[in-house]
Amino acid sequence: MRRLLMGVPLGMLLALAAGAALAQTEQEPIVLRGMGSFHVGGRIAEVKGKEVRMIVRQPGGPQTKLDPNGQYMVEQMYVQYFLPKNKKGKLPLLLWHGGGLTGVSYESTPDGREGWMNFFIRKGWDTYVSDAVERGRSGFASPDVWPSEPIFLTYQDPFERFRIGDGAGSWNADPAKQKVLPGSQFPVATYANFMKQTVPRWLSTNNAIMAAYIDYVDKVCPCVLLLHSQGATFGFQVAEQRPDKIKAIVAVESATAGVVANAPKLKDIPVLMLFGDYVDQHPRWATFKKIDTEYANAIKAAGGTVDWINLPEIGIKGNGHMMMQDKNNMQVAEVIQKWLVGKGLAD
Amino acid sequence: MRRLLMGVPLGMLLALAAGAALAQTEQEPIVLRGMGSFHVGGRIAEVKGKEVRMIVRQPGGPQTKLDPNGQYMVEQMYVQYFLPKNKKGKLPLLLWHGGGLTGVSYESTPDGREGWMNFFIRKGWDTYVSDAVERGRSGFASPDVWPSEPIFLTYQDPFERFRIGDGAGSWNADPAKQKVLPGSQFPVATYANFMKQTVPRWLSTNNAIMAAYIDYVDKVCPCVLLLHSQGATFGFQVAEQRPDKIKAIVAVESATAGVVANAPKLKDIPVLMLFGDYVDQHPRWATFKKIDTEYANAIKAAGGTVDWINLPEIGIKGNGHMMMQDKNNMQVAEVIQKWLVGKGLAD
Repeated sequence: MRRLLMGVPLGMLLALAAGAALAQTEQEPIVLRGMGSFHVGGRIAEVKGKEVRMIVRQPGGPQTKLDPNGQYMVEQMYVQYFLPKNKKGKLPLLLWHGGGLTGVSYESTPDGREGWMNFFIRKGWDTYVSDAVERGRSGFASPDVWPSEPIFLTYQDPFERFRIGDGAGSWNADPAKQKVLPGSQFPVATYANFMKQTVPRWLSTNNAIMAAYIDYVDKVCPCVLLLHSQGATFGFQVAEQRPDKIKAIVAVESATAGVVANAPKLKDIPVLMLFGDYVDQHPRWATFKKIDTEYANAIKAAGGTVDWINLPEIGIKGNGHMMMQDKNNMQVAEVIQKWLVGKGLAD
Repeated sequence: MRRLLMGVPLGMLLALAAGAALAQTEQEPIVLRGMGSFHVGGRIAEVKGKEVRMIVRQPGGPQTKLDPNGQYMVEQMYVQYFLPKNKKGKLPLLLWHGGGLTGVSYESTPDGREGWMNFFIRKGWDTYVSDAVERGRSGFASPDVWPSEPIFLTYQDPFERFRIGDGAGSWNADPAKQKVLPGSQFPVATYANFMKQTVPRWLSTNNAIMAAYIDYVDKVCPCVLLLHSQGATFGFQVAEQRPDKIKAIVAVESATAGVVANAPKLKDIPVLMLFGDYVDQHPRWATFKKIDTEYANAIKAAGGTVDWINLPEIGIKGNGHMMMQDKNNMQVAEVIQKWLVGKGLAD
């Protein structure tokens, strides 16, 4: 058994353990003409005039001097890209993640299946996945540069908030006592693996995040944006500033949209708004949907095109906020791919 | 021109701008039978009995209440993997980065060339790249869980310390006034891009980092470790605890080694110690080399095998501490590959 398992990646073992697709190992290979990473944005911040202070560097250790003065590279953003040999997408496809998360959202699922990143690479899209400023491989700045504190998600927070469980109070450490939404597509047995993907976030860095996204778009686009949650808020606002660079937007449960007064700037950008299941009965999500509706209406009033898909209405049920990781994630991805092909953006 | 550039990745543009290899676009495709990511390690930390405190969430904003009590997922570690179709490495190859850095060290270089990750995938190794606990996509814990503060690298620190410039005082914002080491292979014109790869680090998390690395090795190995700088310190200590899981170690400028008293546990693991240029004249690196020599001698005294390569002695000159990003990074990688093949670990 040991020899059999040798060299088999954990993801596949997890997938097997979860009873998932052996088929995955039988898929076609992914053939890339290139792959790599880079950072965009960033600035050199000067910290000066600060007093040398005493900090504890190691728990139980002594107070030691810290001179915070100097220059620091801050507010850069990490991007990883994959370029399929059999290119079918006519433009680069940029995947932007939601709050408290990183580009990892789009990689493997918590139970080890392939995520949307692999899906879109396999469909022939030049695929770019980023970590917003201050998250993941983008790094973060010191308190001398950002005078505010990050916030940390409690273990049960996304379970109750992302429509895995049925709202506040639905989490329980005992799986038998968890109030999972009926028919939920989330791989709930591997919720711990999802929580490992979460990262701290600041509430003060929106301008820095926007600046890096703008730099990113200026460097890599024209392109198509696939946005999730908070990433959609940024994406719409970037599109308002760079309408000529963005050739289509897919917004997956945009958690607030752009600035309504600026929505007319998106009149030449086809938009798809996508929502999962259980939305209307959860006030937080019903509110986002209402905000997105107003933004969509403002685009349409200016002569633009917004398509709207509520997944249950097309027979796809049980999807929560992390639908790119749901058991039927490929079914949802196919809906997006079909829309993109329909807009003439891919063969 | 605009249309010509459309869809060309930034990495390639940077490479072109830097006068580097057009050849890169003409390389053989990378053919993968799979790719994905997962997290290892991690634990649920309980914060309790802490007072609700007031924090500033947004600069200039009000003091708001923060209740830090609750459960948090902490100390997990991110791993991304690539499995070439034409597999030639007999075991998984794990790339561990150095201090203040992430797995990005091994991806594209600051001037947009391919890094060692692509090199080893192209050579047929199942290649795994991780971010140590508290760095990059591994996330980090709150001050309520880790009662210490991260440290931040100043902009000039790695320039002066990683043997790009000639030690303290060699940095200058004016490139014409920088004292770059003669013959340096570092792509110094894109130093800013390298600094964008750096991330904060804590000095208090060694136990957590070790725990996650052990879990990683238990899940993915037997394997070969390719270690850089601080990552080598961890790698040797992991090998001391899991000697049966580690089938070879390549340590690139190990910044301190394992525990000398435990070195005999590595007697069945072939080890390659690799150092670049300008080492002996820079006290910090001469000291690390001495520490590594003592550790190597202790392995050999127990009957083990340690090969040692100082690159200048085999005619490869100008390499600093970030040799996986140097202009001749592929030449150095070939030295490593040749050693691995010589040990019977790859065809």
